[in-house]
Amino acid sequence: MVKAPIEFYFDFSSPYGYLAAHRIDDVGTEAGREVLWRPILLGAVFKATGQSPLVSQPLRGPYHLHDLQRTARRLKLPFQLPDDFPMATIAAARAFYALEASSPTDAKRLALALFDAAFQRGINISATETVLGLASEIGLDPARLEAGIKDNAVKQRLKAETDGAIARNIFGSPLFVVDGEMFWGNDRIPDLHDWLKTGGW
Amino acid sequence: MVKAPIEFYFDFSSPYGYLAAHRIDDVGTEAGREVLWRPILLGAVFKATGQSPLVSQPLRGPYHLHDLQRTARRLKLPFQLPDDFPMATIAAARAFYALEASSPTDAKRLALALFDAAFQRGINISATETVLGLASEIGLDPARLEAGIKDNAVKQRLKAETDGAIARNIFGSPLFVVDGEMFWGNDRIPDLHDWLKTGGW
Repeated sequence: MVKAPIEFYFDFSSPYGYLAAHRIDDVGTEAGREVLWRPILLGAVFKATGQSPLVSQPLRGPYHLHDLQRTARRLKLPFQLPDDFPMATIAAARAFYALEASSPTDAKRLALALFDAAFQRGINISATETVLGLASEIGLDPARLEAGIKDNAVKQRLKAETDGAIARNIFGSPLFVVDGEMFWGNDRIPDLHDWLKTGGW
Repeated sequence: MVKAPIEFYFDFSSPYGYLAAHRIDDVGTEAGREVLWRPILLGAVFKATGQSPLVSQPLRGPYHLHDLQRTARRLKLPFQLPDDFPMATIAAARAFYALEASSPTDAKRLALALFDAAFQRGINISATETVLGLASEIGLDPARLEAGIKDNAVKQRLKAETDGAIARNIFGSPLFVVDGEMFWGNDRIPDLHDWLKTGGW
């Protein structure tokens, strides 16, 4: 029997999501689980929870910036916070779903390229042209992708994923769901790993 | 040269603080560091950060309750959330500082008794009489402790610790500071442990 996948919810504007995106597929491979990447619009989620992005919060913001740098060093990943932060990520998320229908692999490749552009090179990835330019850099067809981003079905898909995430109590990024069990945060990936390895506790 | 202590900031109403209180002294012992317990009033901190207690937050609350139960199982600690939650913890925190001046060991014993009463037995520890009763249970003199709780110097001490914590950007519970490095959350104790063991990264 095929084991249920790991669902990986994130917003492209989430720096801990960037760190998690470089780790989660390895956890899935080791556990024999597919990892379904699920970009959502966290702004809509924050409206529902009354929260705000971590690094914008008084007192918490400076801690999280320091913690991001510290965690990235430990994971041996480059890290910088873009000047324009948080960023609008609707074009990035639509581009993901536009690709995913025909090639989940290309969708993940683009997702990593977008994350790396934002959090390794400090690029504001909000604009559709920026997303298309980064897609070109990794060999994807920008004209086809642009049509996908503008496709009504793709727009509806992103809305449905975000609404569905709120309905499932997905309140942050990154957040993982597997076998009905939720793990919130890049720092809980070891817990998720151990849960899958041991069958839970 | 004596190594700097680990400062352990918490509020007695913090369920993750309860879990951390059962673990942090072992980390200190292994690293050859004293652990200074620093109860503060998180309500004053939340006013400064605009946040609210985790389990009171829409969407996040149910997750954190589940995560607390799951984490407690993993740590093999009993856990329940008191019916009256969050609780006022001014009497508990004053009792800690009243004892600490003469016996840090007794202060920690009382702190653990208070945490266990709240999160193992579901007792609302807000009232001074409850704090005194729990102190009696572990062999402390309730009359002397009551005088301490009412002592103006003790009240000022708690206020100074809470104000000082806000000034140092202590925004949550549990939160650890060592060698100028902050670690937030029970789930970051392994990071703190590794940081002290390796000298950081």
